[in-house]
Amino acid sequence: MGISWFNGRLIEGPVSLDPTDRGLTLGDGIFETLAVFNRCPAYLGAHLDRLGGGAEALGITVSRAKIESGVDELCRAQPHEHGILRITVTRGPGTRGLSGSGDTPTVLMTLAAWRRGTINAPVRLATSGVRRNIDSPASRHKTLSYADNILAAREAAAKGADDALLLNSQGRVACSTISNVFAIRGATLLTPPLSEGVLPGIVRARLLAVAASARLEAREAILNPDELADCDRIFLTNSIRLVRPVAALDGVPLRQGATASIDSLLAALCEEIARDTGRDPRDTDRADP
Amino acid sequence: MGISWFNGRLIEGPVSLDPTDRGLTLGDGIFETLAVFNRCPAYLGAHLDRLGGGAEALGITVSRAKIESGVDELCRAQPHEHGILRITVTRGPGTRGLSGSGDTPTVLMTLAAWRRGTINAPVRLATSGVRRNIDSPASRHKTLSYADNILAAREAAAKGADDALLLNSQGRVACSTISNVFAIRGATLLTPPLSEGVLPGIVRARLLAVAASARLEAREAILNPDELADCDRIFLTNSIRLVRPVAALDGVPLRQGATASIDSLLAALCEEIARDTGRDPRDTDRADP
Repeated sequence: MGISWFNGRLIEGPVSLDPTDRGLTLGDGIFETLAVFNRCPAYLGAHLDRLGGGAEALGITVSRAKIESGVDELCRAQPHEHGILRITVTRGPGTRGLSGSGDTPTVLMTLAAWRRGTINAPVRLATSGVRRNIDSPASRHKTLSYADNILAAREAAAKGADDALLLNSQGRVACSTISNVFAIRGATLLTPPLSEGVLPGIVRARLLAVAASARLEAREAILNPDELADCDRIFLTNSIRLVRPVAALDGVPLRQGATASIDSLLAALCEEIARDTGRDPRDTDRADP
Repeated sequence: MGISWFNGRLIEGPVSLDPTDRGLTLGDGIFETLAVFNRCPAYLGAHLDRLGGGAEALGITVSRAKIESGVDELCRAQPHEHGILRITVTRGPGTRGLSGSGDTPTVLMTLAAWRRGTINAPVRLATSGVRRNIDSPASRHKTLSYADNILAAREAAAKGADDALLLNSQGRVACSTISNVFAIRGATLLTPPLSEGVLPGIVRARLLAVAASARLEAREAILNPDELADCDRIFLTNSIRLVRPVAALDGVPLRQGATASIDSLLAALCEEIARDTGRDPRDTDRADP
């Protein structure tokens, strides 16, 4: 199990959890997953902003300074120099009843080793029967309530795909179970707006910001599933895998154009992360384990 | 914290949980909440059937016999003769990745004391902006991913209401955050079908079965929110509170007719539970604490 950081201190092995902890009993909390290079989490500030937004939406009060010091402590103590940091915040132990407040939030952090070949691997998508609920704030926060995503991911795996394409309640493109969706059409970079039931991805926001460096005009746009085959390239983004081209959708190969644009976007992202952490993610991803 | 049953044995105090347990990290599991009288859980078989259905939908394999023996052990060991039993099953510790299988499910059970005045208390509802996702199997299983319900319950509490009325993605009546919704119109008992994004409530099913004893014709029906004010009575059902009349919706008092029908339905339910457990829930509910 390795070392974790749990409620203020480093521990080895299992956590000692109150059986009424609402993270365990009701998926009542939020989380973040971050890439760590040279013991430095990439885009930590943006991830903590998003965590804070989710906590506020759920009415959970948690100290940002405490989390920051825990991140630092765990990253220094772990044997993994490069890895994947997970920050989990629950409402903590609580009385029965959904609206009840917890006593004190539970904060748990773990750090797994980086695995070679994580970045830029092509992905085959299968459209899921599970749809993204645009009529819930939870679709725009990274809550612990991941049953919809888990059901969709299992459905995709059963179809032999790597991930699921999630449409929203209106049947339009939203995201995958773990990623935002982007399309390149000509000189334009497109991604669905957050109002489509989309998580505000950290890499999503960075790509929209650095698109000009790849000579792309970036904008949010409603995407219908039948438009995807007409785009030059569809790709997925998240904080760990960064950018991944979509090779096929529902068994049908998609166009693999705009490679230079995708390479430029990935390069701009990796240079930002290298400035932040002192390490280019591509070097870590290519390194021997 | 009292006594719990955790993975095969009775424990006091906190549980010792693997930090990768997917119940804690992803709301990846299912649960049941049961009324217990005379140390006997009411409708145990039906609850375990529903738990099994949810486990199957999520691809979690859990031993029913093991849960039954745990329920028995906990109910005998607890100081509470009457109470509220919660059975939680998670996929257990697992590797990263949503579709990954857990090693061994985690089973946790707790038993809280009964609180007087739980049954039949009137409830004020507020219509929630959070809608029930009919395009997910999770809306028909009692998964641990309760963020939508928690957000709706907190919204209702902020409006001074006791619970939220949840419409579904199509804007039709689905349920409350913890209950099924019923309407009585003339001599007819109505409740939305499960396809409306509704959990298959145990008390819901029993009321549909015993409706004839209250001289009511029971059937599932699509309900639009603007029809509720025209019904003789709206009420909520769940396994703990049994039957609760809805006094008001969004601050507007609802009709309080059909009282004899509701009394007959509650009586039929309580008689079934008394046959099962040897105790009429109404006696426990009226008793001094």
